[in-house]
Amino acid sequence: MTSYTPPHERAREAFLDAVRFDRAGLVPIIAQDAATGEVLMLAWMNRAAVEETLATGRVCYFSRSRGTLWRKGETSGQVQRLVELRLDCDRDSLLALVEQTGVACHTGRRSCFFTAIRDGAVTEIAAPLADPEALYGGAR
Amino acid sequence: MTSYTPPHERAREAFLDAVRFDRAGLVPIIAQDAATGEVLMLAWMNRAAVEETLATGRVCYFSRSRGTLWRKGETSGQVQRLVELRLDCDRDSLLALVEQTGVACHTGRRSCFFTAIRDGAVTEIAAPLADPEALYGGAR
Repeated sequence: MTSYTPPHERAREAFLDAVRFDRAGLVPIIAQDAATGEVLMLAWMNRAAVEETLATGRVCYFSRSRGTLWRKGETSGQVQRLVELRLDCDRDSLLALVEQTGVACHTGRRSCFFTAIRDGAVTEIAAPLADPEALYGGAR
Repeated sequence: MTSYTPPHERAREAFLDAVRFDRAGLVPIIAQDAATGEVLMLAWMNRAAVEETLATGRVCYFSRSRGTLWRKGETSGQVQRLVELRLDCDRDSLLALVEQTGVACHTGRRSCFFTAIRDGAVTEIAAPLADPEALYGGAR
């Protein structure tokens, strides 16, 4: 896997200026496993989160529930290293190709998208790979 | 590729009831190519769009700009057939695995996520595969 080299500030600023944040100052972002193509999660970033992610190569979201920057893996150790950040045609959503350490989902599953209809019922289609209690302890 | 068989109404209703729509009655949805894993686009659905998509197997979004249901491919012919619809752990975002006819992006590119930083500059990393004028004519 190619390691991420932060681009120069001018390129980072040009990218940031291209993003159309919504009225709350946020943009939705998809995290996709760069190696397997698996979609891991959908989260949100504000301008500071995009800035930090581009500058450090470590994915930082904005937690809408806590109202603060959310450095993915800070508590759980399940960090995401950026491979490439992409912007869509309307400039109002982002796609991050990442290297995921461990699991992306707080339930201990690799991906947050584990609920679907199968055999005529709403079903959990993936089992936890890690114990959420071990990942978060009392911190969550 | 497995073809989609609409589940019974009870399962569809259970899935719909599980989705947490935002204050505007919308939920973000990622469309991913079921065969290649490529992330094609991020769009939005309201309850009626989720309902129609599950019932027909043809992906229908909600157009925030037009304020109406948006049957993907209705004008362009670039339809998306549903393979599976998945809900995330927080129940506030969706992932659609789809079979994409032609291109997903209105610019004629396969994916909407074609802008990234490469070689120190914000760059278009994919070229159009289809002529938008041919896809939409004067209809867009």
